[in-house]
Amino acid sequence: MRIAVIGGTASGPAAAAEAVRANPEAEVVLYEQGSHVSVGACEIPYFVADQIPEASTLEILTPEQFEETRGAAVRVRHRVEAIEPEKGRLVVESLVHGSRHEEPFDRFILATGAHARRLGVDGEDAGGVFTVRGLEDAVAVKNWLESEPVQHVVIVGGGFVGVEMAEAMRHRGLRATILDPSGRVLRGVLSDGMAGPMMEAIHTAGVAVRAERVSRIETDGHGRVAFIRTDKGEKIGCQAVIVGIGIEPRTELAKSARVKIGMTGGIAVDDQMRTSQRHVWACGDGIEVPRVVDGKKILWPLSPIARRTSRVAARNAAGAKPADSFASVTPSVAVRAFGIEGAAVGLTLEDAQTSGFDAEAIEIKHWSRVSTMPGAKRLHVSYVVERGSGRLLGGSLVGEEGAALRANVLVPWIRHGVAVREIVEEMDLIYNPPLAPAIDALRVAASAAMRAINKSKKSAR
Amino acid sequence: MRIAVIGGTASGPAAAAEAVRANPEAEVVLYEQGSHVSVGACEIPYFVADQIPEASTLEILTPEQFEETRGAAVRVRHRVEAIEPEKGRLVVESLVHGSRHEEPFDRFILATGAHARRLGVDGEDAGGVFTVRGLEDAVAVKNWLESEPVQHVVIVGGGFVGVEMAEAMRHRGLRATILDPSGRVLRGVLSDGMAGPMMEAIHTAGVAVRAERVSRIETDGHGRVAFIRTDKGEKIGCQAVIVGIGIEPRTELAKSARVKIGMTGGIAVDDQMRTSQRHVWACGDGIEVPRVVDGKKILWPLSPIARRTSRVAARNAAGAKPADSFASVTPSVAVRAFGIEGAAVGLTLEDAQTSGFDAEAIEIKHWSRVSTMPGAKRLHVSYVVERGSGRLLGGSLVGEEGAALRANVLVPWIRHGVAVREIVEEMDLIYNPPLAPAIDALRVAASAAMRAINKSKKSAR
Repeated sequence: MRIAVIGGTASGPAAAAEAVRANPEAEVVLYEQGSHVSVGACEIPYFVADQIPEASTLEILTPEQFEETRGAAVRVRHRVEAIEPEKGRLVVESLVHGSRHEEPFDRFILATGAHARRLGVDGEDAGGVFTVRGLEDAVAVKNWLESEPVQHVVIVGGGFVGVEMAEAMRHRGLRATILDPSGRVLRGVLSDGMAGPMMEAIHTAGVAVRAERVSRIETDGHGRVAFIRTDKGEKIGCQAVIVGIGIEPRTELAKSARVKIGMTGGIAVDDQMRTSQRHVWACGDGIEVPRVVDGKKILWPLSPIARRTSRVAARNAAGAKPADSFASVTPSVAVRAFGIEGAAVGLTLEDAQTSGFDAEAIEIKHWSRVSTMPGAKRLHVSYVVERGSGRLLGGSLVGEEGAALRANVLVPWIRHGVAVREIVEEMDLIYNPPLAPAIDALRVAASAAMRAINKSKKSAR
Repeated sequence: MRIAVIGGTASGPAAAAEAVRANPEAEVVLYEQGSHVSVGACEIPYFVADQIPEASTLEILTPEQFEETRGAAVRVRHRVEAIEPEKGRLVVESLVHGSRHEEPFDRFILATGAHARRLGVDGEDAGGVFTVRGLEDAVAVKNWLESEPVQHVVIVGGGFVGVEMAEAMRHRGLRATILDPSGRVLRGVLSDGMAGPMMEAIHTAGVAVRAERVSRIETDGHGRVAFIRTDKGEKIGCQAVIVGIGIEPRTELAKSARVKIGMTGGIAVDDQMRTSQRHVWACGDGIEVPRVVDGKKILWPLSPIARRTSRVAARNAAGAKPADSFASVTPSVAVRAFGIEGAAVGLTLEDAQTSGFDAEAIEIKHWSRVSTMPGAKRLHVSYVVERGSGRLLGGSLVGEEGAALRANVLVPWIRHGVAVREIVEEMDLIYNPPLAPAIDALRVAASAAMRAINKSKKSAR
């Protein structure tokens, strides 16, 4: 059995390695159009900030190391132009030799991932305008910052990438401005109230957040960015622009093979990571996955999910018995920047209401440790709860310490449909003065949610 | 309805307040033989270490504040000598006036707690020998350290109290030696391997841990401790001894009312916190509670459980409908001392095997953050897993950061009988380079446990 895996960033290498493990007799070939495989993209801001010194720390394995340790053949600088599953072959172009040829395969795994969304404005191709999706981008940004006389960097998009890159710029001693139409960061992840502590820390760090969009990018006489114009007619001088406005699945190859694309724009797969085409599986950032709680198909382009889907796709493509399956993703995200941790798990209030839940959200403030202990910090917790059942649907935590790791507890709670009453009455969380208060913030929030839904019930009568 | 609550440390005040909330027409009286109510005992080491400046921070409410805000009458310095539930009365001695009288009550809540276990050796009553259970103890220890020429403190018992008090002594610049028959700390909570990092940190801090018992305490000419003799014939000079060798439920009053005492030595209660005597409920550190997983009755004298049991006892004693119940305790403990966090949840391997589980334990080392990030620290994880089902029965974490809060995730996992396979395949824990590695240590440990039980299955064939 010959298995082709297309895409070498994260899910592709994971899938190739897993396919070999699942079926040591299969011949597995991994294709990647770039020069690297097995890259950890989440570390990019820390590499750009000079907190991780070497670009090589981002590359988990060289192609040679990968072949040697994982047992799959690796073809870097090879672009797969088409897959023809019914004919059992693919067409591949070598970017080294410029040659094109066909290769026979029995099974195909699409791990083509996603690319950074572009602004779609004039001047976007100017020197000094970057997206930060892969290792090459990271190296390019860093080279630019080190070789050009950069003083001010405009960051477009106040999501995770924007916040982390803004911090990286401050770490390098550069001025930074975040542009986001909402006028704040982490919209769609944290409520206005919950984002407050992060916004304060960003302002304290001297980073401006402006409720504007980029309408065009202007260059100096040498094709380098000189300033941007915004939709409010403002002109902002800058020597670099970093665009972090989300991703779009790469689906050209899938479409060429008439693989079905879902409503999200991602490749549609079943719970075994099979696409609509026989002999074609898919995994990684380019696919859509069902969300916990409501089963809604979403894009969730994060590394841990890429690993999970690649494992299922690879084992099933390799013919492992019994078949592996993927139940759902429990969306979980976290950031630490400007001395503040923020994390969110499950559904936001808007998510829940869009999916038809009679839900409400509560927000509380408590402490990271016993409040009288040295080092105790404010901890903000928000829960999204279904009114009738009291079931926890989502939540977020923000604070100087103890926010992100506490958010982990929400993963099993949400996944198992735990009600806030059970959290209050039966969840014996850790208590120790320098680590957590006697009633943990997670239980204080559950009490607040119980009171809120009881009040809603009474006023509904 | 008149409700008497006996015991004012933590569960008693909580029960009294809850009884008033549940039944505002009830007359609730709280009896306490000491001078304080509503004391947080877990903060004592930090008070003794001068990290929490005022003794008053330990007293959550004064008796007057308690009466005013909680609506229950408070009788401090009143010792209840007997309760006679069938006669609907109790006998109480005022320690202020020395008078004794009877008072009529309809219902009784025993919140008499526990006292520190004593060594039972000669010289135990010498000046400078302390247990640390209550606020008075804490003040006495601190006064002694501040007024006597103390240089070296012997701490008897390497449990949580021993470790925290040893750190408090180092914080005060005093020499400290821990005596524990096992020759190490946190025996019964952490395995030898898991205790390693804490032992290293303790040694680095200059605290000796000796595998010895105290056989007698010798005094100077003024009745003050001068040295101890150990069971190995050693003589250790010291100017203070702190004894932390566990607790024993206070059950004299319960026995006087012919309330049944369980095998553990704690007051036996049903899931509504009713004792064997009609009209008598009990809560707090003096009762035994069923453990999660195996239902075994255990003593679990920790504040969060005292709060839970007091709420159930109070609401049921006050006649709340429907009746409240208590399912089980998920044992969870944590400590931070000498720069190391340690936490344990659920059953130890010994607990599990004693309860008849075919269980095994695994231990792994991973990282608190992405390993290449600044500040990443080693994180040690141990799981206890049932072989057949793969169900997680218990676990512990030790490391410089991120151990205790990660342990919280084990609470719902163990409570809901989650198998390690589900942890590996479906638990989408937080990933962000400065906060957690792409595969969290909790999932790495679950993978190791899966491999271990698969191996056991194969070798069993």
